[in-house]
Amino acid sequence: MQTLKTGILKALRTVYDPDLKKDLVSLGMIDDLLITNATISFTIILTTPACPLQEFMKQACIQAIRKEIKKELEIIITTIAKVTSSRPPAAILPEVKNIIAIASGKGGVGKSTVATYVALSLANHGARVGLLDADIFGPSIPTIWNCEREKPAVFKQNGKNFIIPLERHNVKLLSIGFVANSQEAIVWRGPMASAALKQLIQDAYWGVLDYLLIDLPPGTSDIHLTLVQTVTVTGAVVVTTPQKIALIDAIKAIAMFKKEQIQVPILGLVENMSYYFSNKEKIGTPHYIFGKEGGKKLAEQQTIPFLGQIPLLPIICEQGDVGISSNKTIAPFDTIAQILAQQIAVRNAIYQPTEIVKKSY
Amino acid sequence: MQTLKTGILKALRTVYDPDLKKDLVSLGMIDDLLITNATISFTIILTTPACPLQEFMKQACIQAIRKEIKKELEIIITTIAKVTSSRPPAAILPEVKNIIAIASGKGGVGKSTVATYVALSLANHGARVGLLDADIFGPSIPTIWNCEREKPAVFKQNGKNFIIPLERHNVKLLSIGFVANSQEAIVWRGPMASAALKQLIQDAYWGVLDYLLIDLPPGTSDIHLTLVQTVTVTGAVVVTTPQKIALIDAIKAIAMFKKEQIQVPILGLVENMSYYFSNKEKIGTPHYIFGKEGGKKLAEQQTIPFLGQIPLLPIICEQGDVGISSNKTIAPFDTIAQILAQQIAVRNAIYQPTEIVKKSY
Ligand SMILES: Nc1ncnc2c1ncn2[C@@H]1O[C@H](COP(=O)(O)OP(=O)(O)O)[C@@H](O)[C@H]1O
Ligand SMILES: Nc1ncnc2c1ncn2[C@@H]1O[C@H](COP(=O)(O)OP(=O)(O)O)[C@@H](O)[C@H]1O
Ligand SMILES: [Mg+2]
Ligand SMILES: [Mg+2]
Repeated sequence: MQTLKTGILKALRTVYDPDLKKDLVSLGMIDDLLITNATISFTIILTTPACPLQEFMKQACIQAIRKEIKKELEIIITTIAKVTSSRPPAAILPEVKNIIAIASGKGGVGKSTVATYVALSLANHGARVGLLDADIFGPSIPTIWNCEREKPAVFKQNGKNFIIPLERHNVKLLSIGFVANSQEAIVWRGPMASAALKQLIQDAYWGVLDYLLIDLPPGTSDIHLTLVQTVTVTGAVVVTTPQKIALIDAIKAIAMFKKEQIQVPILGLVENMSYYFSNKEKIGTPHYIFGKEGGKKLAEQQTIPFLGQIPLLPIICEQGDVGISSNKTIAPFDTIAQILAQQIAVRNAIYQPTEIVKKSY
Repeated sequence: MQTLKTGILKALRTVYDPDLKKDLVSLGMIDDLLITNATISFTIILTTPACPLQEFMKQACIQAIRKEIKKELEIIITTIAKVTSSRPPAAILPEVKNIIAIASGKGGVGKSTVATYVALSLANHGARVGLLDADIFGPSIPTIWNCEREKPAVFKQNGKNFIIPLERHNVKLLSIGFVANSQEAIVWRGPMASAALKQLIQDAYWGVLDYLLIDLPPGTSDIHLTLVQTVTVTGAVVVTTPQKIALIDAIKAIAMFKKEQIQVPILGLVENMSYYFSNKEKIGTPHYIFGKEGGKKLAEQQTIPFLGQIPLLPIICEQGDVGISSNKTIAPFDTIAQILAQQIAVRNAIYQPTEIVKKSY
């Protein structure tokens, strides 16, 4: 039996996690190895339930074992996920494993849309997900999630009031739009907006989360600075459309996160509104209304992981307007969510924890 | 002769300016009336060179005179334009007759694009036009006008430095993008951005302008407040795309301008990206990718003049990316520019001057 176990572990040491570039045994990803007369069973501990390599790794393990062990035993592999974290023990939001900023520079490129479907997708895979709308002047989350008229509950703990985020389709949601009148304008200077964001972050009861997505406003100003000065941000996703006018602002967003005083790793770039397919054409060819592959090329230039393209789909716009009514995601977003989850795991494994940005900045 | 003149004026008193709802004589729009043996000649003084009613008014005058005067005289009508102003003698930008803010709430809806083509169009009609890029964090004007690497000249007057706006296709241009590195992010809190905007306004030498268009950033924050606290703004144009997510933010922008402490008249609403025509279809039908007529309906609901729709045109995006290379405008924008110029004249005729917004706000 002992030699069988040794053999199996030897086999599994030849299986590499393609992202982390180490073998599964050294990474501590193999657990509960059990050998009976007829079966070998073990668990692979993944770094995210949305791991796109799940099936690939299972098959690689089976092949490696079959090669090493000649005995015909049934191999039973279970996968579980323990989402990793690189956030240092933090005073603020310590129970949140990963804080992911969704940014763009330019407005209207699809930050809120990407944040929404990625959140849905991660939750569908079983992750505990929160979505914080940090767009104080143009909050879209209440509309997209069809809870414009909802008010979050409040509870008191140790004399302090906490907001309880709403929950829809297993995603926890918070937005200034839940507390402000949507017909009115919040005409505030920066400090007021920053104070509002801080309250949404500090005074909310999120509980344990694997991923908290932060839907940022356009620009590179108060809200962005307040965010990185208030919590340690695991990484940022940059959303852009293909045209130069949007790319220029995406470059600015990337430059902001890379600034020496800020240093938030960029987890990847999403190209939205990439092309349009007419349903009225016999032979569908893509219409590049906003130009071709601008985002993809930018990701290459800046050596940022490219998370994928999203076509112009009337259904995306429609669902954004009437509000999503189920947890159904849309194909390209699901792939993007998986690659992102993977990139977060890579980031947590290989980069230093992000530090809080100094207030003086 | 005297009776002939009286007759002509009587006739012209029956011709009404459809916008201002008064007759041309009472409005002081008739000048240089000259009668010879064979001709009647006079000048109509229009309120804008981009007046869309120019031809209509000429014809109405001819008809009215022919009806009143039986003698077969040739009628020669010249039109000139004196752009009106409702700006009170102001300490800042006194030589600018009209300051027009282009706003949206939402980003990426086409503010900079609309500002660009409207400016071109007004200049093509003979107006003196300036375009100030107030989008400090995402300036698009340098790219769209193809002067990304240009630096404006500076001159000294009474010991003070003045920036001279660039000039392209008869439009004067100023943007923070002319002085900042486009690859870098300006990561500033609000007060810094406000100070930069103030400098662009106060320290620029615009000369006499009929129209100064201000291309605003998204949101309703520092830049917007600083603008209305620094200069008297004649009116605002709100740009939106048809979807609800954009309309909500357009409503916020409208609400901001209507606020009791701000009170900038809304001159009209532009619906951009209204529909798409595929050049690959035999029988072209519009594709409503972003929904149908949302902007038009909003204008009706809010009783704001509707300035027009602009389709999704790859050429608009392309020209925005490579930069415009001539003064050629694009059809729907020209109509929008004319209706806007008309609305500015109406605003100047019937509403109170805008006041500077108090600093305490
Ligand atoms: N791929 C897409 N196809 C069609 N409409 C889209 C797409 N992505 C976004 N939209 C729509 O475009 C608008 C802008 O997207 P949004 O997510 O609000 O952008 P941002 O948050 O960056 O301002 C919304 O109305 C949204 O529904
Ligand atoms: N009607 C249109 N058809 C195609 N592309 C457009 C249209 N209007 C704007 N665009 C493109 O969309 C992007 C956003 O427009 P822009 O004027 O920069 O918006 P904003 O100033 O409101 O952020 C630009 O790349 C622009 O070229
Ligand atoms: Mg958004
Ligand atoms: Mg713009």
